[in-house]
Amino acid sequence: MSYFDAASAAPLHPVARQALLASLDDGWADPSRLYREGRRARMLLDAAREAAAEAVGCRADELTFAPSGTRAVHTGVGGALAGRRRTGRHLIVSAVEHSSVLHSAEVFEAEGGTVTRVPVRRTGAVDPGAYAEALRSDTALACLQSANHEVGTVQPVAAVAEACRAAGVPLLVDAAQSLGWERVEGDWSLLTASAHKWGGPSGVGLLVVRKGVRFAVQGASDERESGRAPGFENLPAIVAAAASLRAVRAEAEQEAVRLRELTARIRARVPQVVPDVEVVGDADRRLPGVVTFSCLYVDGETLLHELDREGFAVSSGSSCTSSTLTPSHVLRAMGVLSEGNVRVSLPAGTPEEDVDRFLDVLPGVVAGVREKLDAPPVTSAVRTADTPEVVVDSLGRRCPIPVIELAKVIGSVPVGGLVRVLSDDEAARLDIPAWCEMRGQEYVGEEAAEQGTAYLVRRVG
Amino acid sequence: MSYFDAASAAPLHPVARQALLASLDDGWADPSRLYREGRRARMLLDAAREAAAEAVGCRADELTFAPSGTRAVHTGVGGALAGRRRTGRHLIVSAVEHSSVLHSAEVFEAEGGTVTRVPVRRTGAVDPGAYAEALRSDTALACLQSANHEVGTVQPVAAVAEACRAAGVPLLVDAAQSLGWERVEGDWSLLTASAHKWGGPSGVGLLVVRKGVRFAVQGASDERESGRAPGFENLPAIVAAAASLRAVRAEAEQEAVRLRELTARIRARVPQVVPDVEVVGDADRRLPGVVTFSCLYVDGETLLHELDREGFAVSSGSSCTSSTLTPSHVLRAMGVLSEGNVRVSLPAGTPEEDVDRFLDVLPGVVAGVREKLDAPPVTSAVRTADTPEVVVDSLGRRCPIPVIELAKVIGSVPVGGLVRVLSDDEAARLDIPAWCEMRGQEYVGEEAAEQGTAYLVRRVG
Repeated sequence: MSYFDAASAAPLHPVARQALLASLDDGWADPSRLYREGRRARMLLDAAREAAAEAVGCRADELTFAPSGTRAVHTGVGGALAGRRRTGRHLIVSAVEHSSVLHSAEVFEAEGGTVTRVPVRRTGAVDPGAYAEALRSDTALACLQSANHEVGTVQPVAAVAEACRAAGVPLLVDAAQSLGWERVEGDWSLLTASAHKWGGPSGVGLLVVRKGVRFAVQGASDERESGRAPGFENLPAIVAAAASLRAVRAEAEQEAVRLRELTARIRARVPQVVPDVEVVGDADRRLPGVVTFSCLYVDGETLLHELDREGFAVSSGSSCTSSTLTPSHVLRAMGVLSEGNVRVSLPAGTPEEDVDRFLDVLPGVVAGVREKLDAPPVTSAVRTADTPEVVVDSLGRRCPIPVIELAKVIGSVPVGGLVRVLSDDEAARLDIPAWCEMRGQEYVGEEAAEQGTAYLVRRVG
Repeated sequence: MSYFDAASAAPLHPVARQALLASLDDGWADPSRLYREGRRARMLLDAAREAAAEAVGCRADELTFAPSGTRAVHTGVGGALAGRRRTGRHLIVSAVEHSSVLHSAEVFEAEGGTVTRVPVRRTGAVDPGAYAEALRSDTALACLQSANHEVGTVQPVAAVAEACRAAGVPLLVDAAQSLGWERVEGDWSLLTASAHKWGGPSGVGLLVVRKGVRFAVQGASDERESGRAPGFENLPAIVAAAASLRAVRAEAEQEAVRLRELTARIRARVPQVVPDVEVVGDADRRLPGVVTFSCLYVDGETLLHELDREGFAVSSGSSCTSSTLTPSHVLRAMGVLSEGNVRVSLPAGTPEEDVDRFLDVLPGVVAGVREKLDAPPVTSAVRTADTPEVVVDSLGRRCPIPVIELAKVIGSVPVGGLVRVLSDDEAARLDIPAWCEMRGQEYVGEEAAEQGTAYLVRRVG
């Protein structure tokens, strides 16, 4: 089995495993107690904090251990917003943040706060200038991920941090995807991360709050972890998290070069061996191990199952692989194709042969899924009498059917003619324009229809 | 080393260790993913939930895994209060709940809610009738621990649950101290627990919300754990928690009898071998492994250090062992002596010889601490001219000095005479009346003094 979903959860690093085992014996007692076992636990906790702080590039007393990266984000965003309540009730996030940041923003909006979601370029990166323009006199907090979790694009954190610093606004950086590779550059104010993304155990997040940042923890708390993470410390996991962060960092520089070469190979080869594919994300400023592409006329869930059957574990931002049946908010914000979306995220140590085997297998798998999907007939393609226009009724059909039907009929209207796709699938809003861009056809726009939405496409060539 | 602080954190049960190791290999992937590793993780999670639910006595879909018992309480109390906001903004807790419950209550008060803290008897138990009287038409939630964490007293949960049920008020039971021993009886509505209290790993709490209980999670959340515990599941620890709960339960009945005999021995022997000791908590309705006593004229922190030196790890509710320099809220609510307080909580499997060695060592240790403390002279004991009254100025002196000074001078006033102890130590408020009760002297009351407080004691015998 080739596990290519490290961006969801990296397999446990051997050092993490070793440290976890050792601290199961030495670190189960309450570190706030005065007796020997408690003091030993406290020493382990202090040493883990020092090690993690060194890797982050902060003071040990600025770093607390949370039960997950998600909790670190919730606490960090909530605490920073509350700490600067007097300044204002405005929050800035990028449109492609992790759901933990976006959920925090939604809670803030529900409580009466205002949120600006800074759009991204087609690469997935924010424009530092556009981000800076969102800063206001009442901005309490700005958030920007170090790198995107779905497409691997690295964000211009240092430039945005500089703009925030100039405006006197703290910047929270969600560094979940990049901290295992390197320190986050720039003059950020808060930072969050998640151990299981770098090969540490689950159950550990990092929350760093720089000295001088106003911060007021929300909700019930206690005296543990500077009052920022209540509850008994998950010490063996914390020790394993810190030890593995140090270990992966020692290997990071060399491994980054190797993985970057492998993902570059995927980026280059996939469009050569699979027709109708869009590789998404920035080609240069990107994480070493992540590459994402979308395949036209492919159902993401079926594709994942077929790849799983071939021994590859990958992830997808397609609508049919999400519980909400909407495409990933990242792909939407980028305006790229979402159907048949595949994220390959290679764990450290991935053998080159596994990547080559993936490239061997992928064309056949995609072709097989497309063949199956080709089978359902176009539900209705009625040539109207007076105008060179075709109506495709895809109501009730899920992605990628609307796009498949569009593709089938585009040739039946003359150049300059119009195809009107009726769809009530949320993915169509993203995928029909993306198809037009890939195919060189003109996307005219959408209109409300009696049922669902009509997407208008003009044949150009 | 004899570890006698299981009520803080129990050593890891061998089954927990074994399950943790196994699921480090099988359970590191994201259980929400569709590929093989994800499905395997999902199966482990589902099985752990079934096992934990069976041990609790609830449906699997009523139980969620939180990152700690503390977080389970915070989420449970906050969610239940928000879910019944329309009913009212009144919360009932006992005065001796765990700090996680009391912190939640403080947050609720800060947000405008009203909290009734039901007092306890000298044994530490609430009176079910008094608890029932606190129920109001606007009561949103009632909380009662299954057993007290500091003195081991078992609470009348079933009777209180019945009263709550009759009033239509949900009862949240913090079962952290008892769930490893048995199911919580009675018709409760919500339940919380913590794995590291029963020999499971740290990083896992349980939150059970019965079907039909109105519940609205507060703050940012996500789709994991029914929206009640955001963040990547700490799966290896969850699997270990469930497996160890099942394992400790299998051994519980027999081990409870054995530990109960050992703690009964401590309860009986300590007052025989150590003078001026008060054993606190209910003699009968109590946890099998917990026994708590307080030693007059003893500094709790020194006592803990000396016991640690002799190889015993115990805990204390004395003021000088807490960061706030106030005695434990539990001992205060019970109105018992707090100075020289020692909680012995035996982990399952504690050898009888360890308990006997503790009983051998304790008298000498206490005597040694007392001898040291006797050394400092009474700061000032000025016999006034006209009245048979002595003023002891203990301002700036910490527990147990004020009580030691009182004890030294009580003989220097005639029967009917008055000792006035000036103290600014919070523990004196609890310990001077407790000393009077132990010594058969009359506690007259307290008066505000120029500095600190004057505690008045009349010599009776």
